[in-house]
Amino acid sequence: MSGQLTIVGLGPGPAGWLTPAAEAAVADADIVLGYTQYVGRLKPRDGQIFEPSDNREELVRAARALALAAEGRRVAVVSGGDPGVFAMAAAVFEVVEADPKSADGIDIRVEPGVTAMLAAAAHIGAPLGHDFCAISLSDNLKSWATIEKRLRLAAEADFVVALYNPASKARPDQIGNALALLAECRAPETVVVFARAVGRPDESIDITTLAAAPDVACDMRTLVLIGSRTTRRIEMADGRAWVYTPRFERED
Amino acid sequence: MSGQLTIVGLGPGPAGWLTPAAEAAVADADIVLGYTQYVGRLKPRDGQIFEPSDNREELVRAARALALAAEGRRVAVVSGGDPGVFAMAAAVFEVVEADPKSADGIDIRVEPGVTAMLAAAAHIGAPLGHDFCAISLSDNLKSWATIEKRLRLAAEADFVVALYNPASKARPDQIGNALALLAECRAPETVVVFARAVGRPDESIDITTLAAAPDVACDMRTLVLIGSRTTRRIEMADGRAWVYTPRFERED
Repeated sequence: MSGQLTIVGLGPGPAGWLTPAAEAAVADADIVLGYTQYVGRLKPRDGQIFEPSDNREELVRAARALALAAEGRRVAVVSGGDPGVFAMAAAVFEVVEADPKSADGIDIRVEPGVTAMLAAAAHIGAPLGHDFCAISLSDNLKSWATIEKRLRLAAEADFVVALYNPASKARPDQIGNALALLAECRAPETVVVFARAVGRPDESIDITTLAAAPDVACDMRTLVLIGSRTTRRIEMADGRAWVYTPRFERED
Repeated sequence: MSGQLTIVGLGPGPAGWLTPAAEAAVADADIVLGYTQYVGRLKPRDGQIFEPSDNREELVRAARALALAAEGRRVAVVSGGDPGVFAMAAAVFEVVEADPKSADGIDIRVEPGVTAMLAAAAHIGAPLGHDFCAISLSDNLKSWATIEKRLRLAAEADFVVALYNPASKARPDQIGNALALLAECRAPETVVVFARAVGRPDESIDITTLAAAPDVACDMRTLVLIGSRTTRRIEMADGRAWVYTPRFERED
């Protein structure tokens, strides 16, 4: 093996959610590449090179990482959350498949992490306690028709739905359109959770209903969870509220 | 607050995948409850009590944990993987909802972990790189008709499908039935991965096709991934194979 490339998941943000294996993979690298915000969480050790880049540069970053590893370097590409969920691992394999020689002799590894929906779920209870799906609302890479079809089928299947990339400056209406569509398929009192910056100092969590959800602000740092028919909100005597989906399902 | 109850995800097994926050939550507990196999991964510190129990005792364990916390103790309930995915967190909230007084004054927390599908995905590439769903095949808690409906809709939506609890001694045919059903909806060459005991010394990963999948053995420690239409297998010059799902989707 001439070099090494590890695609590393840093988790949602806090050091307590960074796995020891991910931390070791970063420490072991000669060069660390990634989106500026994720690289910015780390501190370079002596002699280590950090190469931050823009969020929309995934394929360029993946090719660059493979080229550096082909020179014999130890390279880490970092993602927030888990690198395999709407993140850098797929981008690296897209480059590898298009140009198999780019990976010749490189020891490629993927180091998993706590993805955003698990962290969001933990902070509000157990909304993913039963069957669920994860859908990216980014339509840079697929059509809105595909997203719409998938949302309708997810509602029919009664999955809890985790929406990644719900909105951006370029697509502010995406989440509103998705919520409007789901409102055609599910009851207005369906539990909806907006979990923003989970685990960070500016964390905010809004528990609402499908009927009221369009009024909640939402950005790229927000994970949106739409409950299934069985997802429920429970109010505690201490004023706290929890959301969970029971493990069992009664027959209709 | 009279006591504390933290439902903790230990990750798939290796120490490198146990988050520092989960490790700290276990160390901080006076009493640790959980399925024997998960408690068995840990070493009690001086004065700490371990209370292992059978896998089918979730609700009894949840009620017991709440009762201990109500006495003012610091209690940890441990799950493998993430506690919110087909695991103990939902069981605790089921007990809390049925008997709200059981949670009076208890500081309840959930500590997330790396769930099995993320670890399995990392070890074979990036199969969860695009929209996906997670379905438990255990029919103790829902009917087979519900599972069947959900599998058909997941196939129609073209999700990558992660199957948890694919088989047990009591339900050896569950996975075979699910694969037969999916074979009616998806092409025979669809990529299927059986990932058993990922991260453990006895890890084994089989990459196969939907047509050949019924011949692969499978147990409760196996996570089964069924690819979408776009999931692909790539063969490397070094003999290694990777499975990934591209981030983009071309139109039909």
